[in-house]
Amino acid sequence: MRLYNMKNSGNCYKPRLLAAHLNLDLELVAVDVVNGETRRADFIAKNKNGRVPLLELEGGQFLPESNAQLWYLAEGTSFIPTDAYERAQVLQWMFFEQYSHEPFIAVARFWWTIKPGGRTEKADEFAAWHQKGYEALNVMEEHLSTRSFFVGERYTIADIALFAYTHTVPEAGMSLDAYPHIQNWLTRISRQTNFIPM
Amino acid sequence: MRLYNMKNSGNCYKPRLLAAHLNLDLELVAVDVVNGETRRADFIAKNKNGRVPLLELEGGQFLPESNAQLWYLAEGTSFIPTDAYERAQVLQWMFFEQYSHEPFIAVARFWWTIKPGGRTEKADEFAAWHQKGYEALNVMEEHLSTRSFFVGERYTIADIALFAYTHTVPEAGMSLDAYPHIQNWLTRISRQTNFIPM
Repeated sequence: MRLYNMKNSGNCYKPRLLAAHLNLDLELVAVDVVNGETRRADFIAKNKNGRVPLLELEGGQFLPESNAQLWYLAEGTSFIPTDAYERAQVLQWMFFEQYSHEPFIAVARFWWTIKPGGRTEKADEFAAWHQKGYEALNVMEEHLSTRSFFVGERYTIADIALFAYTHTVPEAGMSLDAYPHIQNWLTRISRQTNFIPM
Repeated sequence: MRLYNMKNSGNCYKPRLLAAHLNLDLELVAVDVVNGETRRADFIAKNKNGRVPLLELEGGQFLPESNAQLWYLAEGTSFIPTDAYERAQVLQWMFFEQYSHEPFIAVARFWWTIKPGGRTEKADEFAAWHQKGYEALNVMEEHLSTRSFFVGERYTIADIALFAYTHTVPEAGMSLDAYPHIQNWLTRISRQTNFIPM
């Protein structure tokens, strides 16, 4: 399988991390998102929505959306529970990640750390992103105050989806100091077998 | 099962529509989102993220996130394919809906039509929401130009997730006039057995 990849994107890191845990080979194809490569015709032909990560399966089919890729790669492994309610909770947290977490923490990080000149260009936007980002972290901190992992007391793709950008919070101009349960959970994930850093 | 519900929310309509197709009984509990009921302590105790729809299962467990609810209710029915790649594509389009569609079209609709005084309060925001909303509609229109439904030429929860707010586009201050394939797809869904309007 082939992954169209941006090295410092948390969304691209998700399938890479899961593939490492599962000992799957992923051929990486570098895509220069910051310079507009995902908006060019040859990339749009592969993914109409013009985004990475994009997974190319062995049969040549394309699969966009990092969390759909996680589900595809993890089905039938210990990274997705078998119980129906636990499976739905894994999806619950992955939709939470894409709706209530990534649009604030990942976007703030992009403009704070990745995009040259971003701190000046988006100076007026960080306060709102940080407020919404901390609201997401508050939900996670309370959930983790009585749990080791997000679903079923087992390391699943819900944890991988949320780890991707939560561990980059300082690069978003934010702090995890007030979130001890999140910090312990990040450490717990970094100690899992075959873990790779972003 | 019980659904904590806001009558004119597209996200809440998703599990109601699927339940109608599947002949499932859903007891509806009205929640006054516009007046802050989802931010009160008794609701936060049920869903830390303070949002509807919230599904209460027969065993009393709670499941937030409309698209996770769709997956939970549809597993084992014709509304989720059995093929691994098609299942992942259903999730792909549901993540597309929550990331690239709902935050612009549903949010614009809320301030344009649902929230009193919203058109004035958010006057400066509609141009950006509409641009991003039309980008999502462009992706959908091209996909539907060669297909009857989003995945596997069969009506699935990917269609239900995208129908919820696409059929409210005019209430967002936008138009579907340039999108004939989307219009035909909306009509096709409205003719499915046991369809209910929002």
